[in-house]
Amino acid sequence: MDSIRNLTLGDIIREHRRSWPLQTAVVDGSTRLTYLELDDRVSRLANALVAHGVGVGGRVLWLGQNSFRIMEALLACAKIGAVLCPVNWRQTPEELAFVIDDSAPAIVIWQEEEVGEDVRAGRALARTSDARWLRHDTAVHPAGADSAADSYEAFLASGAADDPEMEVGAELPVLQIYTAAFSGRPNGAQLSHLAIISQDLVIAMAQQITPQYRYLCSGPLFHIGCFMFTLATFHMAGTNVFVRRVVAEELCELIDRERCTGAYILGPTIDQIVEANRDGRYDLSSLRILGGRPEWVAMTSPDESPWGRRPGGFGQTEVMGMTTFTAFDDPDDPASRPLGTHGRASPVTSIRILDDDGAECRHGDVGEIAVRGLTVMNGYWDRADENARRTSNGWYRTNDLGRREADGSISFIGPKGRMLKSAAENIYPAEVESCLRTHPAVADVAIIGVPDDRWTQSVKAIVVLRDGNDGNDGSDSSDGNDGNPVAGSPSVTAEELIEHCRTRIASYKKPRTVEFIDALPRKGFLVDYDALDEQFGGGAYPGGTNRSA
Amino acid sequence: MDSIRNLTLGDIIREHRRSWPLQTAVVDGSTRLTYLELDDRVSRLANALVAHGVGVGGRVLWLGQNSFRIMEALLACAKIGAVLCPVNWRQTPEELAFVIDDSAPAIVIWQEEEVGEDVRAGRALARTSDARWLRHDTAVHPAGADSAADSYEAFLASGAADDPEMEVGAELPVLQIYTAAFSGRPNGAQLSHLAIISQDLVIAMAQQITPQYRYLCSGPLFHIGCFMFTLATFHMAGTNVFVRRVVAEELCELIDRERCTGAYILGPTIDQIVEANRDGRYDLSSLRILGGRPEWVAMTSPDESPWGRRPGGFGQTEVMGMTTFTAFDDPDDPASRPLGTHGRASPVTSIRILDDDGAECRHGDVGEIAVRGLTVMNGYWDRADENARRTSNGWYRTNDLGRREADGSISFIGPKGRMLKSAAENIYPAEVESCLRTHPAVADVAIIGVPDDRWTQSVKAIVVLRDGNDGNDGSDSSDGNDGNPVAGSPSVTAEELIEHCRTRIASYKKPRTVEFIDALPRKGFLVDYDALDEQFGGGAYPGGTNRSA
Repeated sequence: MDSIRNLTLGDIIREHRRSWPLQTAVVDGSTRLTYLELDDRVSRLANALVAHGVGVGGRVLWLGQNSFRIMEALLACAKIGAVLCPVNWRQTPEELAFVIDDSAPAIVIWQEEEVGEDVRAGRALARTSDARWLRHDTAVHPAGADSAADSYEAFLASGAADDPEMEVGAELPVLQIYTAAFSGRPNGAQLSHLAIISQDLVIAMAQQITPQYRYLCSGPLFHIGCFMFTLATFHMAGTNVFVRRVVAEELCELIDRERCTGAYILGPTIDQIVEANRDGRYDLSSLRILGGRPEWVAMTSPDESPWGRRPGGFGQTEVMGMTTFTAFDDPDDPASRPLGTHGRASPVTSIRILDDDGAECRHGDVGEIAVRGLTVMNGYWDRADENARRTSNGWYRTNDLGRREADGSISFIGPKGRMLKSAAENIYPAEVESCLRTHPAVADVAIIGVPDDRWTQSVKAIVVLRDGNDGNDGSDSSDGNDGNPVAGSPSVTAEELIEHCRTRIASYKKPRTVEFIDALPRKGFLVDYDALDEQFGGGAYPGGTNRSA
Repeated sequence: MDSIRNLTLGDIIREHRRSWPLQTAVVDGSTRLTYLELDDRVSRLANALVAHGVGVGGRVLWLGQNSFRIMEALLACAKIGAVLCPVNWRQTPEELAFVIDDSAPAIVIWQEEEVGEDVRAGRALARTSDARWLRHDTAVHPAGADSAADSYEAFLASGAADDPEMEVGAELPVLQIYTAAFSGRPNGAQLSHLAIISQDLVIAMAQQITPQYRYLCSGPLFHIGCFMFTLATFHMAGTNVFVRRVVAEELCELIDRERCTGAYILGPTIDQIVEANRDGRYDLSSLRILGGRPEWVAMTSPDESPWGRRPGGFGQTEVMGMTTFTAFDDPDDPASRPLGTHGRASPVTSIRILDDDGAECRHGDVGEIAVRGLTVMNGYWDRADENARRTSNGWYRTNDLGRREADGSISFIGPKGRMLKSAAENIYPAEVESCLRTHPAVADVAIIGVPDDRWTQSVKAIVVLRDGNDGNDGSDSSDGNDGNPVAGSPSVTAEELIEHCRTRIASYKKPRTVEFIDALPRKGFLVDYDALDEQFGGGAYPGGTNRSA
């Protein structure tokens, strides 16, 4: 009787075609499909995939920008037990080639417009040769180089019309998203039907998504941050409006025309929209927002949902996005404002703060955030060692550090990757950095460990002061223990920064020395700790010279 | 890695003790417990149950009125894989004995006050003798006849304090509720952790239940109708306020004191509350309600949640309560009001209208409502034949009739139990009755089948007319085909009623004859069709003379 209690993304579109046959499911350029029409296309695509030999666990790669076809391909995969992997199209050809080889897809759906050059270069670099490549935007460019046989639309049309009606377990993966390269290469987090379905319900609850919700999918769908709202909108039979990528004027037109109630819009885009709509020619009043610039607030409506009033929390692709929420704290009672910065566990997960032995930390102590529950991924694709390392006693270890505060709320501290050792104590640089950042004179900070004969390592802070305080160049250094004010920065001394830490975190974690520097060396967004070690004598990290996990 | 994606009711209380240690979980008389305190008691009870030999699948019966201990016992069962069965205490001793014998409990938790006499009589009638009986209200009556060893509180206190930390699968049953005796005896619907958890999310979404929700559990917790809100409130870390049974004055006091935001209150109780609070001495403004009498509206606040604005749908204990909802239709757009009376499928279930062969009916045709999805029960306890009969091709057959309308919405028609046969056609009396009830002159109606040599049966309607139209006594009859007005009821003729059906349902379903009667014979709430058959010559039902399924 088990199949009686099953529920997959395929079941949801099957129900929607019956319950909401006339409801608009997707809007994308000139394409508008009802749930009935979308399901017809999904079934055809599913049958075409099966006819091509794509079976349970088969991979379908999406190498293109946002499109309603991402949902369509995901649902087709859902109906046959296959897995859709939407790839970050902003990557270099080398990075694209890595994902192509790593996921070993049976089908690659790709896009010529805007991204075709890099995609073709990635394809040329990849070793995988047996995938069928289908271009999805040939309708846009009918004169494209590919034959009709290589067009996504022709492939879809070749599929039989009937629903394949295959039995697919809700515990199987259906979506694979590559996450940050914490171990030197990206890893594909596999997310099951049940993970998506249960997260949908939580997101729909937090954001008050109903069938009347119209979501502008204006964030990248290869990231869970936007996709989790798209999926919740789909699940609740709302309408998803797709844009290939963010162009402020286009977003204005779509919000106005489609009466969008939600959208994925970040700060810089808000500025562009406010500028583009300065004359008020677009009616954006359907859009519900948190707040912000007065001009932005004036042209939109307030979002009164729990998420709208208190967005935020801790999340990871590996747990289908958010797994703690600030949304459920009482918005009307400031006294109930939690001590932690990242809210409390989602209703579909449990959270534990674990030490390195897998024991639960006391409240107030920093440890690794571990998660268990319906939204936890089915492991990384083809990463047995990493999956084993990230699993202990029935808990998924996030590789991120956090703290459970006295009132039960959670604070996210930072990535666990780097660790220092002082005598028997583990010290997480992220925690010390997080503490120093709360000092008003500190603009930026990195913590390294320097060899110490007696204690293995001692903690050194490399600090960038705020404007007017950064009189020292990087070559100057000041022993934090001598009490002298830092030359040229009268407002704070090394000793004061050390004292700042001593009163806020365990004393053994406080820096013993402080160095001031103009700017931290970076590789992309990430601080280049290797360069700092070289410059300031870091070393003796536990587990060898490479401090990265 | 499977346990990593598990989530049980035990996991939820474990998380709540950490995330919401200071939040009030339950209020019951003078008892107030935080989530931390509740979980401490739950672990002790769980350990005591294990020490008594209660294992996975073991049954714990609750024979008492509403109490926070129902939640406590449910959660203790959840932690060890056992099943709580809260029994309808309004039943006769014979009925109680049936449930005791049928469920074969290891533990019976019972109550002396108000219900003790019937419970003891039921216990004496039951054949099951090896259950341990624990009285839960000995603290209320310390001079009770039972020794301390037979007190629930002493039993709980005997359990070890540590969380048992047993691995329990979310797919296992944890709650068993006996449902209507459609097959001549009640059947215990077994509901899994996942059924409860997923329904919680849907109810919390529909009713906008957050940790700030305070629910007055004033409906019977042996029915799913009230319990599904109690469970959702628990899941979202809200506060449940328990009353043993409904006393209007007590409800007023509790709503006032605890600032309850929700409650299970039906019409007659509303009248009592309005009366009890006529002088406005209770502040009931925290309570959110749908609407109703002006006095009631004036003393409460409007419920703006989707469920609050449009409560209703189709549900069954067997699918953890509601499985279609009217709540998600657009409340602001009357044009979108669905054709169906019972909304659309819940986001965690699929619905099909099936014919007797298990094929899907066309839109507009009546068939059996079938459900599939996360909330479907794990079958009835110890009813292999009935479970097999109610299962086909991966769908649970509800034994209820419904129709999918052209817009995809669902109408519930009535119980399937009785069926008529006219040539090759199945005719469901509920559908014809439902159609006749829409005629303004019809107060009540029952459909029977009378033997017909050519067509097996022909349809006969037994009609009670509204006041002023019921001039005929039951012995008068009128052939519906003769066109004569019914004596004494000038406003409607048999022919008019038949024509009313002909234009609304398939012609073969319309009555061929109509009888008028003062009142339908009833057994309790149910129409006594056997008496009608005897009086009006019914018979030749498919499957023998007993028309009941």
